[in-house]
Amino acid sequence: MTKLTVIGAGAWGTALAITARKAGSDVVLWTRHSAHSDLLNTENVNSSYLPDIPLAAGITATSDIRHAAQADILLLVTPAQHARETLYRLKPELEAETILVMCSKGIEQESGRLMSEIMEEIAPSNPHAILSGPNFAAEIARGLPAAATLACRHQELGESLVKAIGLPTFRPYLTDDVIGAQIGGAVKNVLAIACGLVAGGRLGENARAALITRGMAEILRLGEKLGARAETLMGLSGFGDLILCCTSQTSRNFSLGAALGQGDILEEILQERTAVTEGVYTASAICRLAEKFGIEMPICAAVDEILNGGTAVSSAIEDLLARPFRDEKLAGF
Amino acid sequence: MTKLTVIGAGAWGTALAITARKAGSDVVLWTRHSAHSDLLNTENVNSSYLPDIPLAAGITATSDIRHAAQADILLLVTPAQHARETLYRLKPELEAETILVMCSKGIEQESGRLMSEIMEEIAPSNPHAILSGPNFAAEIARGLPAAATLACRHQELGESLVKAIGLPTFRPYLTDDVIGAQIGGAVKNVLAIACGLVAGGRLGENARAALITRGMAEILRLGEKLGARAETLMGLSGFGDLILCCTSQTSRNFSLGAALGQGDILEEILQERTAVTEGVYTASAICRLAEKFGIEMPICAAVDEILNGGTAVSSAIEDLLARPFRDEKLAGF
Repeated sequence: MTKLTVIGAGAWGTALAITARKAGSDVVLWTRHSAHSDLLNTENVNSSYLPDIPLAAGITATSDIRHAAQADILLLVTPAQHARETLYRLKPELEAETILVMCSKGIEQESGRLMSEIMEEIAPSNPHAILSGPNFAAEIARGLPAAATLACRHQELGESLVKAIGLPTFRPYLTDDVIGAQIGGAVKNVLAIACGLVAGGRLGENARAALITRGMAEILRLGEKLGARAETLMGLSGFGDLILCCTSQTSRNFSLGAALGQGDILEEILQERTAVTEGVYTASAICRLAEKFGIEMPICAAVDEILNGGTAVSSAIEDLLARPFRDEKLAGF
Repeated sequence: MTKLTVIGAGAWGTALAITARKAGSDVVLWTRHSAHSDLLNTENVNSSYLPDIPLAAGITATSDIRHAAQADILLLVTPAQHARETLYRLKPELEAETILVMCSKGIEQESGRLMSEIMEEIAPSNPHAILSGPNFAAEIARGLPAAATLACRHQELGESLVKAIGLPTFRPYLTDDVIGAQIGGAVKNVLAIACGLVAGGRLGENARAALITRGMAEILRLGEKLGARAETLMGLSGFGDLILCCTSQTSRNFSLGAALGQGDILEEILQERTAVTEGVYTASAICRLAEKFGIEMPICAAVDEILNGGTAVSSAIEDLLARPFRDEKLAGF
């Protein structure tokens, strides 16, 4: 039986633990706080993040990182900005063949690095993969159908991972485009904030659709520069995840944007949240990458300006919608 | 002052009349029934299709096709399946320089022809253009911001049309890819029905996002065969319109699918509607085109099967979601 540990017991980590257990793996769910792991083990439900969805028998929670690391596969589901710290903590406990699967989406704020680059930097000899797709945790925990992109360099590794976490209702599709599989998931968090702004400002669904269209062009432009393939960006981890998060209040990034668009104050919104709103941190990293590569990413720039530059929401939205498309030309085609 | 007539007084025709009037054109709104044109002229509102949105002074309704045809620009906004008949009626009244702008989205059911091909067949010497984008009529009539694709072969013609109907809140973007600008608008009607089926069956937003992702691949495959450019398909008239209609109950096609997904009977849904649900007619035309060109369009085929082949909704949905992606490979890249 495959031994699989999920590192991070938020909504997505918990949903993945439930899924991997259903797929037949022996599952440990690691959380930072021992009080939380005790609660998970006694209540058999993650009442903070996925209330009403029972943890199946065969899922054990722990806060002991050494115990957690004793697995064939580690799914890394801590927030993207904690990925580096988590990997440093795990590293001394890892076997050489332990497989690392990054399930967090984002770009490291300080370094501008992708999650795969951080894995390569800290644990270069361990096999690793990226899981990313249009995957709201609660739906997957409830067994509703979904699909995702699973990216790794070796087909055999990918196939063993599909066996460990795949189900008829949760289908991972393989690609070797590790870079491409990360771009959409990172940028869509920022674009979802922009779409939330438009929704919160009651500007309508037409404006949002136009904004998502231009947002996809930003993903394609950045992806091209970073060496991603257009087909990956147009797949589940790019296009699919973008649509999901830009059209639903269930997205934390979208709902943050919507609250801002209605006039709420950023600091107050963030204080009220237990879960991390990744786009807030990724926005500035993306803008620095865009600058470095000389790419236009005006929507991401506008979101960054609002979050970090003190620009008023209303004027930023106006600028965004007034900005012309240029003859519908896209990079990557 | 540009004389502009809108042929068809449904929601979209009325919204375009309001927009063109705001842009400074002298606007006539043609409707088939004299009782309707009388009502429009006395009530100054289209209470059947756009209640609560007043028609501005300077918009005159008529049911006289000869009077309607005396214009510099005709916006054709009758249902796509009536485009041929409308053009036959208009033809004897047209001046050689009258500009025809097709604003209806769809493929002729019997012939499998695009709207531009019908215009070329019936009125080959008149200049013509295609207007298509993520444009819910009510939002545009209310002056909320939106953008669209305006496709015609000559830049000068395009620029004069932008002047006649464009506003800061309604921005038409020019392209010369007349074919490309029609594919998204036709296929999305069918894909929106599929997304409605998934929503009606309460299968969740993840499943819908995966379906839209594969739907976009169907648009790209068909578009490529018909000579469209990928950048157009990825623009407002393709990608943008697809997102809009696949994620909103405001879409007639989506809401039809949702009703079917909840177990309602097709004939009963259609009987209750005054407005046309274009996807019902376009589905079979698209499937014949797909067959002719040897393209896989499984989502469109499933919708056609449900609408015209008597397949049970539940089994068709199951098939759709179970069908594997193939390594995320797309045409057109």
